[in-house]
Amino acid sequence: MRLAVCQLNSQHDRSANLTVALDLVVRAAEAGADLAVLPEYTDYLGPSATEPKPESIDGEFAQAFAAAARRHRMWVVAGSFHEIGPDAGRTYNTSLVFDRDGGLAAAYRKIHLFDVDIPGRVAHQESKLVAPGTEVVTLQIDTVPVGLSICYDLRFPELYRRLAIEGAQLLLVPAAFTTHTGRDHWEVLLRARAIENQCFVAAAGQWGDHEPGRSCFGRSMVIDPWGTVLAQAPDGVGVAVADLDLERLASIRQAVPSLANRRLP
Amino acid sequence: MRLAVCQLNSQHDRSANLTVALDLVVRAAEAGADLAVLPEYTDYLGPSATEPKPESIDGEFAQAFAAAARRHRMWVVAGSFHEIGPDAGRTYNTSLVFDRDGGLAAAYRKIHLFDVDIPGRVAHQESKLVAPGTEVVTLQIDTVPVGLSICYDLRFPELYRRLAIEGAQLLLVPAAFTTHTGRDHWEVLLRARAIENQCFVAAAGQWGDHEPGRSCFGRSMVIDPWGTVLAQAPDGVGVAVADLDLERLASIRQAVPSLANRRLP
Repeated sequence: MRLAVCQLNSQHDRSANLTVALDLVVRAAEAGADLAVLPEYTDYLGPSATEPKPESIDGEFAQAFAAAARRHRMWVVAGSFHEIGPDAGRTYNTSLVFDRDGGLAAAYRKIHLFDVDIPGRVAHQESKLVAPGTEVVTLQIDTVPVGLSICYDLRFPELYRRLAIEGAQLLLVPAAFTTHTGRDHWEVLLRARAIENQCFVAAAGQWGDHEPGRSCFGRSMVIDPWGTVLAQAPDGVGVAVADLDLERLASIRQAVPSLANRRLP
Repeated sequence: MRLAVCQLNSQHDRSANLTVALDLVVRAAEAGADLAVLPEYTDYLGPSATEPKPESIDGEFAQAFAAAARRHRMWVVAGSFHEIGPDAGRTYNTSLVFDRDGGLAAAYRKIHLFDVDIPGRVAHQESKLVAPGTEVVTLQIDTVPVGLSICYDLRFPELYRRLAIEGAQLLLVPAAFTTHTGRDHWEVLLRARAIENQCFVAAAGQWGDHEPGRSCFGRSMVIDPWGTVLAQAPDGVGVAVADLDLERLASIRQAVPSLANRRLP
C-alpha cells in the first residue's frame, strides 16, 4: 500500500481550504497513492468558534472528497471537519473515510477533548464547543486493518491499544498539533504508538500560522512498526509519500511478540 | 528529590557485581542523592540460566543493599535480582526498594516476560525460567508517589497508565535493554511514558557486553514529565544525577490536563 500524508495550512476561508486540500489529493494520486490522509479541521481553522456552519456527513465537504476519491479511484481520509453536533452549541470533530468508489466507509468522531482551566490565567474548554465521540473505530482499507484517531487522542495510549487489539495494523492521526507541544511531543508520541502497538502510523498535520495567534507544528509523517520515520513533510503545504511493507510488520511482530505477551487487561 | 541512576555491566561473578553496584551507591550518596536506582539483574548477567542460586527477599543480595541504604540514609532501588520462584525451575525477576532505615519498603516482580518462537530460527521463552509477577506496585518515597516496573514492561503502556492512575509521579525502569532494540526504542518509549503519564521517569540500564553474546544499550537516564531528558549516562559504568522539581510536574499537569481528560477505561 502506498500512502500519502497531506500537510495543510487551513485558514478561515472554507472554499480556499477545500481547493488546496483537493489539489493535494490530486498530487497524492499522481504519486500513485492508494490512500491520502488529510489533517484535522481541513475545512476550517480560523478565528471564530462558530464558523464554518457545521455540515452533515453527506454535506458539501463530504461530497467534495467523495468525488475526489471516486475520480482518482483511491481511498481518502478527509482528516476532520466540523460536523453538526448533538445540540445547537456543539459540533463533532469528525474524520471521514471514503473508499475508491467514493462511498463513506467510516466516520470517527474525536473522543478526547482538550479542557484546561488554570484559574486566573487560562480557560479553554474544547468540550463546550465540541461533543466527544464515544466509538472506537476500525475499518479495512483494501487488505489493511486501520484504526482511526484525531490529534489530542495521541496523548491517550489506551485508545491505540484498543485499536491494536481490535487488529489495526495502520493507525491514522490527522492533527493540528501546536508548535509549542509539537516540538517536544509530536514525533516521540507517534513513534511510541508505532513501536508499542507494532503498527504503521500515518500522521497528517496542519502547519504554520492560523488566526488568532495559533501556530501548528506540521512535520506530517509516516512511521513503520519498528518506529522508523519512513517519510516526513518539511515546513510548508505539501505531501509526503511512503510504501507500507506489511511483510515487515509481520516479521517485527514475530521477532518482538509484545502484543502477544500482554498480561494486563 | 535528587535521584541517581546507576549504570552497570554485571557479569557472571556475583560478588564482583555487588562490589561495583555498592560502589555506585556510595557515589550516588556522595552526590547527595535521596534515591539511587540500580539496573535489572544487578546480581548476575551471565551465561547460565541456572546461576546464581536464587535468594529470598531477605537474602544476601537484599541485606547488602539494605545495609547500604541504612549507612547512607538514602533510598535504594536494588534494580532486580533472581528471587526464589514459585517452583524449582523458575525464579522471579524482582526489584527491591529499601528506605533510609534499610527497611524493605516494596518488592516488584516483573510482570511481562519475553516469549518468542520463530519456528526453525529462534525460540526464547523467558517464562520457562521466570515466573511472572501479578501485582502492580506503587509506594511513597519521601513525598513522591512512585510506580515500579522492569525492562520489557516498558513496551506495555497499560502498566504505566495503571501506575499513573494510582497516583504515581515517578516511574522507575531498571533494565537490561539490548543494544539492537535500545537504539530505536529505549529513549522514545521512556520519553513517551513520561509525556503521556506526565511523570518523571528514571531508567537505570545495564551497559556493554555480557556473556554469551549479549550486548546492553545503557544510556541510563532521568526524564521530566514534559519528556525532556534531564540527565543521561554515557557509555560505561557510572552514575547520572538529576533533581526532580515537583512544582514543574504540577504546572505541566495543569497546563495540559490529559490525565484528567481521559475518557476510555
